[in-house]
Amino acid sequence: MQNVMAVNDLFAQELRESFDQNKNYVVNLLSSPGSGKTSLLEETIKRLKKDIRMAVIEGDIVGDQDARRIAALDIPAVQINTGGTCHLDARMVKSALPELALAQVDLLFIENVGNLICPASFKLGEDLRVVILSTPEGNDKVKKYPLAFRESQVVVINKTDLLGAVDFNIEQARSEVGDINPRSEVFTVSCRTGVGLDAWVDFLKRKVRGSGG
Amino acid sequence: MQNVMAVNDLFAQELRESFDQNKNYVVNLLSSPGSGKTSLLEETIKRLKKDIRMAVIEGDIVGDQDARRIAALDIPAVQINTGGTCHLDARMVKSALPELALAQVDLLFIENVGNLICPASFKLGEDLRVVILSTPEGNDKVKKYPLAFRESQVVVINKTDLLGAVDFNIEQARSEVGDINPRSEVFTVSCRTGVGLDAWVDFLKRKVRGSGG
Repeated sequence: MQNVMAVNDLFAQELRESFDQNKNYVVNLLSSPGSGKTSLLEETIKRLKKDIRMAVIEGDIVGDQDARRIAALDIPAVQINTGGTCHLDARMVKSALPELALAQVDLLFIENVGNLICPASFKLGEDLRVVILSTPEGNDKVKKYPLAFRESQVVVINKTDLLGAVDFNIEQARSEVGDINPRSEVFTVSCRTGVGLDAWVDFLKRKVRGSGG
Repeated sequence: MQNVMAVNDLFAQELRESFDQNKNYVVNLLSSPGSGKTSLLEETIKRLKKDIRMAVIEGDIVGDQDARRIAALDIPAVQINTGGTCHLDARMVKSALPELALAQVDLLFIENVGNLICPASFKLGEDLRVVILSTPEGNDKVKKYPLAFRESQVVVINKTDLLGAVDFNIEQARSEVGDINPRSEVFTVSCRTGVGLDAWVDFLKRKVRGSGG
């Protein structure tokens, strides 16, 4: 396992060099299946597309449903199929790069395989790691899957439109995220209604501009 | 990887022999984090506890929250912490068996780590594998994570109380599950309202009695 990680770190460093060279700000999105990674990307892209040049790398076990959803928004999207592997690794991401004109991209999203565990262990050369937690998953997820929250700089709490119908307490989530990672930023959004998306999108804009991307 | 599987198969066979000897009917529960595995167990236990002797093995990365929820119902519960591993394997389950008086158990539940990918590859000597899919996860999960649906004999669609508030079509899910595994049985339930739980519980009763447990 340590060997696997050492190899991944080498490839992640190569990715980082490519991204620096091309001035790409890179966001790695993690979550359980169905938390809303692709929906968040769709809503983010709609709001940023006038100002920022984006591309997306989609990671899934099989299929290209998510890449097709992104391509429908006229954004370059490359699908990686892991063929059973439960996370993206840096080598897989590297193999997808020739499909993208990286010099034409300011903001590159990498949507990881839907899994709250394994993707947290694999660096992909990203600038920012974002974990999405949706309200119907329940409040116990932060404590039960701590690595994803420790290794991410941002937590997006999605599906706040369901708050009346599910057992989820935003303040408890904020507090438990803060215990694990005091410097993490927490956004609360509903991709369905749009509530909260402006703050998240403004944050991304500042990050991309701050990076010189 | 093939070697890991071969070792797991050997331990799974040992488990199967223990379960047969003790007349245990064993159910392995898989799902994404937050689909409601523990909630389904709680509601199932409340309804079966007069008639059937049960025990639960809880698999989590860290913590014992789920085992405490089960123990609060006066049912023997053993917590396995995988320490980072994204699934239970048969060796871990074997190591937990001495904590349980298996000869006093008719129905043993094994709640796997919350993960829709890796647990599907590891046999635990079970009689029945059940995958839980909750409506807020969305309809694309069956096609995106096919192994869990192919390797499970039962699908429980949970959180049907949210159907008006989320994009999920039960008939589409039934049809796509049927395409992957024509013999699988599909139950629709809401652990929150109790709707649909009777059919699921009756099914389990028949299975336990049919097995001579």
